[in-house]
Amino acid sequence: MANLYFRYAAMNAGKSGILLLAAHNYVERGMVPLLFTAEIDTRYGQGVITTRLGIQREANTFNASTVFDLDLIVKLAPNVACIFIDEAQFLSREQVLQLHHLVHVHGVPVICYGLRTDFRGEPFPGSTYLLALADEIEELPTICGCGGKARHNMRIDEHGKRVTEGKQIEIGGNDRYLAVCPKCWHLGVQTSRRPGKGLVAPEGR
Amino acid sequence: MANLYFRYAAMNAGKSGILLLAAHNYVERGMVPLLFTAEIDTRYGQGVITTRLGIQREANTFNASTVFDLDLIVKLAPNVACIFIDEAQFLSREQVLQLHHLVHVHGVPVICYGLRTDFRGEPFPGSTYLLALADEIEELPTICGCGGKARHNMRIDEHGKRVTEGKQIEIGGNDRYLAVCPKCWHLGVQTSRRPGKGLVAPEGR
Amino acid sequence: MANLYFRYAAMNAGKSGILLLAAHNYVERGMVPLLFTAEIDTRYGQGVITTRLGIQREANTFNASTVFDLDLIVKLAPNVACIFIDEAQFLSREQVLQLHHLVHVHGVPVICYGLRTDFRGEPFPGSTYLLALADEIEELPTICGCGGKARHNMRIDEHGKRVTEGKQIEIGGNDRYLAVCPKCWHLGVQTSRRPGKGLVAPEGR
Amino acid sequence: MANLYFRYAAMNAGKSGILLLAAHNYVERGMVPLLFTAEIDTRYGQGVITTRLGIQREANTFNASTVFDLDLIVKLAPNVACIFIDEAQFLSREQVLQLHHLVHVHGVPVICYGLRTDFRGEPFPGSTYLLALADEIEELPTICGCGGKARHNMRIDEHGKRVTEGKQIEIGGNDRYLAVCPKCWHLGVQTSRRPGKGLVAPEGR
Repeated sequence: MANLYFRYAAMNAGKSGILLLAAHNYVERGMVPLLFTAEIDTRYGQGVITTRLGIQREANTFNASTVFDLDLIVKLAPNVACIFIDEAQFLSREQVLQLHHLVHVHGVPVICYGLRTDFRGEPFPGSTYLLALADEIEELPTICGCGGKARHNMRIDEHGKRVTEGKQIEIGGNDRYLAVCPKCWHLGVQTSRRPGKGLVAPEGR
Repeated sequence: MANLYFRYAAMNAGKSGILLLAAHNYVERGMVPLLFTAEIDTRYGQGVITTRLGIQREANTFNASTVFDLDLIVKLAPNVACIFIDEAQFLSREQVLQLHHLVHVHGVPVICYGLRTDFRGEPFPGSTYLLALADEIEELPTICGCGGKARHNMRIDEHGKRVTEGKQIEIGGNDRYLAVCPKCWHLGVQTSRRPGKGLVAPEGR
Repeated sequence: MANLYFRYAAMNAGKSGILLLAAHNYVERGMVPLLFTAEIDTRYGQGVITTRLGIQREANTFNASTVFDLDLIVKLAPNVACIFIDEAQFLSREQVLQLHHLVHVHGVPVICYGLRTDFRGEPFPGSTYLLALADEIEELPTICGCGGKARHNMRIDEHGKRVTEGKQIEIGGNDRYLAVCPKCWHLGVQTSRRPGKGLVAPEGR
Repeated sequence: MANLYFRYAAMNAGKSGILLLAAHNYVERGMVPLLFTAEIDTRYGQGVITTRLGIQREANTFNASTVFDLDLIVKLAPNVACIFIDEAQFLSREQVLQLHHLVHVHGVPVICYGLRTDFRGEPFPGSTYLLALADEIEELPTICGCGGKARHNMRIDEHGKRVTEGKQIEIGGNDRYLAVCPKCWHLGVQTSRRPGKGLVAPEGR
């Protein structure tokens, strides 16, 4: 039985790397994964899924006019075993419903990776509907500078100051965003480069 | 470290019963749980959380003007160990943010129980923001008549026919809604009263 | 597709209540659940699943010689939709393998509820094999007196002192065991009856 | 609050790749991860964690005589922010208890990656105690050739035939093991190289 999955994370959690590892599992078994990423995300060129550890793969792109129906899938990969979508927060409500239909009426598993909320704490359109409709929702963990679990994205301006207003989407490098825990996000604390707290062996050794 | 939890389910999954069992764990340890339910839900009287197995407890009610700040909590239960909220899909965006603040700035754990989507597949306001901001999201499972996992709510009219348009909120008994799996929801199938498929012992016994 | 589930918890987390709520979901849909509990657990009489909130249901019992094969299931409930097993930590390795076979070869879902570890931190035989083979493993949360998540069971003698050695199984009331968090378990701390820490409204109100 | 994590999977699910991505999250934030792998696993040289996508990192090794106490950690990395352990199924009962103690008494998070069961369905010593004691247990998904979720490891001899008896540990390449779903494991089916089932666009297109 096919499922719709949403694996969300804060920025720089390694989502694309985990996507490529999962897709590779299909390739190794002789099965065909079909990869998509958002056309809007051109950080590493268009139609490329890239990890910070140096791996990259080509991918199809989607934009606002893409229709995820059987025609598209059959055209791209009639033998598809699983659809992978990176930057899934940029999907529209209609596109999430199309993917949900592909999964539950046509039996094609779909695994989406994306952000949950923007720097203001607002969910993206794709996240809203994936969270509402996905069969399995999973958080990919990452770490706040304070040691807590990072679940929010703080936007930083060019002087390193926190920004709390502005447009939802501003594609940028890692340097404009900081993944932080809920407490640091509420209090506006930036603890980005903190070393571990330092352990001391017992009895003065 | 306190967390904000969202435990969602389709209708009639036993959410209120699970809430009362969890709150009882606090009472048994001499700790104080603080219970809320939606004023709008008057199926069993106002300010009462009731299970279909016959247990009920009094609860505070919230409506659109409730402010979940420290003043309210201190007034109701200064020694509170955990806040439980039933029918949490009726919370507003602001109320979810207030609860998120109570959790992460004031250290009070909050556990919310509610529906994820309405009969059209649209998330409720409270669900949208709980799914976006909760630290832990958990599905409380229930069963579709076809044997699959029920994740959607189908609205039925007085003649037993499926309804796909109408207002989001229509408080009613179990008889107006059917919890169904994604496939039955897409195809509009009502398999509400199906017995098991029948097992046969091997070798004609 | 049927699955084998293991929902584990520390003592007094409300496992039996959650089992009865889940089984009730089947009854409401006209489907047949089949209930088992351990013959060894006679706290509330034999063959009865009881919750601390006052609900109870009759159940079949299993002991070391029970064989969970198709013959048994067909004899007890040929139309079974789901098998529920309480006190599943008392299952043997062979019985877990039989249930795993029922699930994956005969398509009968099986949901097991039980303890994960004994008072010494050792897994029970049933827990060991359910943790090794279950398709879905879920922790049912409960609370330590210190506010942390209780995951261990501390055994207490008749004078209220902690016991760290002895037989694995000693059926007793709640008064002989304390559900505690990992830290309290390591340090041997009993914080069983602590009220909340007390909130103070801001600005002296 | 630190936790002990166990992320288990069948063989070839990409465990080591996910470990390296997670450790990299710490490095990017200027925090110090401490990596271990089993001395026994020399597939890629000793003291190296390698992924099938071509990334590798040096790691400390553990064997049966390693003691995971504060002395060891302080010696290797006094500023450690998180301990990562690959091939954690090879840990002993005592080593899992030492790690549990490091987490809950000394506050060092520990994330273990490993297999859950061997080719006979028996848990490894490390898996048994990690499943019994970990605060969070998570399955890293992979795929069976039949399209189901792979949860078991089938051992294959040099002629490609399934083996069901033998020693628990036999370090070998991917060619001696097949990750399969519970049903294929019970029935002994090898569907390792199956293409997708083939989709057909509606209406003859």
